[in-house]
Amino acid sequence: MHFQLLQNDPDSHARRGHLSLPHGDVETPAFMPVGTQATVKTLDPEDLKTLGAEIILGNTYHLFLRPGHEVIQRQHGLHRFMAWPKNILTDSGGFQVFSLQERRKISEEGVQFASHLDGSARFLSPEIATNIQVALGSDILMAFDECPPSGAPRDYHETSLARTTRWAARCKASWRAARDRDPNYHGNLFGIVQGGLFPDLRARHAEEIAALDFPGNALGGFSVGESPAAMYEGVATSAPLLTADRPRYLMGVGTPEDLVANVGAGIDMFDCVHPTRAARHNLLFTSIGKLNIRAARYAEDNAPVDPACVCSTCRTFSRAYLRHLAVAGETLGLRLNTIHNLHFYLTLMREMRAALEAGTFAAFRRAFAARPARVD
Amino acid sequence: MHFQLLQNDPDSHARRGHLSLPHGDVETPAFMPVGTQATVKTLDPEDLKTLGAEIILGNTYHLFLRPGHEVIQRQHGLHRFMAWPKNILTDSGGFQVFSLQERRKISEEGVQFASHLDGSARFLSPEIATNIQVALGSDILMAFDECPPSGAPRDYHETSLARTTRWAARCKASWRAARDRDPNYHGNLFGIVQGGLFPDLRARHAEEIAALDFPGNALGGFSVGESPAAMYEGVATSAPLLTADRPRYLMGVGTPEDLVANVGAGIDMFDCVHPTRAARHNLLFTSIGKLNIRAARYAEDNAPVDPACVCSTCRTFSRAYLRHLAVAGETLGLRLNTIHNLHFYLTLMREMRAALEAGTFAAFRRAFAARPARVD
Repeated sequence: MHFQLLQNDPDSHARRGHLSLPHGDVETPAFMPVGTQATVKTLDPEDLKTLGAEIILGNTYHLFLRPGHEVIQRQHGLHRFMAWPKNILTDSGGFQVFSLQERRKISEEGVQFASHLDGSARFLSPEIATNIQVALGSDILMAFDECPPSGAPRDYHETSLARTTRWAARCKASWRAARDRDPNYHGNLFGIVQGGLFPDLRARHAEEIAALDFPGNALGGFSVGESPAAMYEGVATSAPLLTADRPRYLMGVGTPEDLVANVGAGIDMFDCVHPTRAARHNLLFTSIGKLNIRAARYAEDNAPVDPACVCSTCRTFSRAYLRHLAVAGETLGLRLNTIHNLHFYLTLMREMRAALEAGTFAAFRRAFAARPARVD
Repeated sequence: MHFQLLQNDPDSHARRGHLSLPHGDVETPAFMPVGTQATVKTLDPEDLKTLGAEIILGNTYHLFLRPGHEVIQRQHGLHRFMAWPKNILTDSGGFQVFSLQERRKISEEGVQFASHLDGSARFLSPEIATNIQVALGSDILMAFDECPPSGAPRDYHETSLARTTRWAARCKASWRAARDRDPNYHGNLFGIVQGGLFPDLRARHAEEIAALDFPGNALGGFSVGESPAAMYEGVATSAPLLTADRPRYLMGVGTPEDLVANVGAGIDMFDCVHPTRAARHNLLFTSIGKLNIRAARYAEDNAPVDPACVCSTCRTFSRAYLRHLAVAGETLGLRLNTIHNLHFYLTLMREMRAALEAGTFAAFRRAFAARPARVD
């Protein structure tokens, strides 16, 4: 893996970069569509290539439980299994496991939990989570961490952070062992900085994670329900703490507004279910605000979803047709909506990269802030 | 519309033909994928073009109720609405309305019924059904007929047939009026021959419908639950009764075996939900028999669904991946399965057309009959 910083924005902490990974190049800042169960829901790999995605995210927790990482490994890895030739980042499963709350139990060794599929007893540890990601063949692996819930008290965070640091070191050892076993293995392990909204805890943890010298670093714990303002402030103070010459990834964030604000804070990589999940609920993003395509007002609207959009959905279909598909419950509508929303997100990233190259990111942010929130 | 018979099979009643329609040519024998609600479920028009579909079917009953034919007319017709540039045949709504059983009431004027969507009182008559299809812009319209239920007694059929003939004449008058109103109107109305499994009633009704001189004719009432053997015998005796130099359409049929048998009986056009509905239930057709892709035996099967198939699903994905999508409930699986099954059906028609051109249809039927029914 090689990360090259191409430009630093003079008016913010934003950076334009270039990331070389085993399955191709990724221009940063980048958004990674979420492919939880070995598919970005409703889309096939050709759709993703047409949209210009260079890296997608897979969920270790889900793939571990179904179909199982050994199955995928015997199918020659996740890329071949889902026929996606570009890059894949996998999370560690920690976020999902800790979300199970009373259905999981933490020890120093790892986390015992009950599968959401069948209630069966399962176990994840730093070593197991890393080895699963090695088996999947991920281009970027994430360290197994605890993501404390929103509002957790300071002493909870202190205990958790110390363990997450010990776990990060164990993940690194497992990853190094995988590299030692196979000289052709090229996965890259990223560390994760937690600490909630406590700036001093974030700073201390960032130092501990930096000392482990991962090829890239992430901010976790900023998609657990805090307000946008608190998140923006937290990311703004935390991002500069991450090693400057390595990629910075903000996990699980966010809305279009979140992406623009956090690129300004110096984030290089994002993932979020928001554009794809919103699409399946008929909520579409446009250059003139959000709209709910199921609304009766679109029943005879012959215009495309976004007159300024060049995605295949907007070039081909009217709002009236998409509204009909939504009302009739036709799954084609979910796919056409998903294509549109991901095109919007990936285009937003392209626009920010172009603005950073041109030195016009400040002007871009002002114009973006002036966009209407909703189609009126 | 122009229909040209290119070859007559020396060993059967099979015909190879060429149908020119307002939205392009259709090579016959042809299979029409079913697009009930202005979409062939899970597919977009590009998928259908890639599959080689030249004509699809839309359902008048469904489009009348939702979004309404006036809405589609104001959206410049069904082709523009769903972005399908090739041909569309619409049924008359009769089959669906009569299926409502106790929720509908027949009079000489037409059929009063309760919508399956909201229970609202609606009415279809020969004139209304024809005008809806004119509004949709169908390339082929079907006459509004009664399709009696399987096992209906002879006297029920006699009463029904007489009315269906009177209704066919009224449909024709409405269609002629549409042509007189607009010299650019080019829709083609087909008549429908009913008569259940009574050969003499079929023969008498075929004469009555032939006398109305429609540009094409259909056999109705052969997809209501009779045995394959009874259907094959009924079609074999009925098809020759339809005007020989015009297209013969067997409505709502059928399985791959049904298509091969009834091409042999002289049928030129087919439609059926079977390939698309089976796909959504994970039942896939292959050159080595049917298989249920959700079965545990495919969990680690790295082969394509059908090693002999060149559809995009088989060229890209393994049985193991499709099985995973089915088990995980991912809608992508429904689309990939649908692409495969329609490719199988459309390829079967291509194979039959090629065999008819080469004069080898009898050999094709023997080879087809020797195929295994199920992947063992």
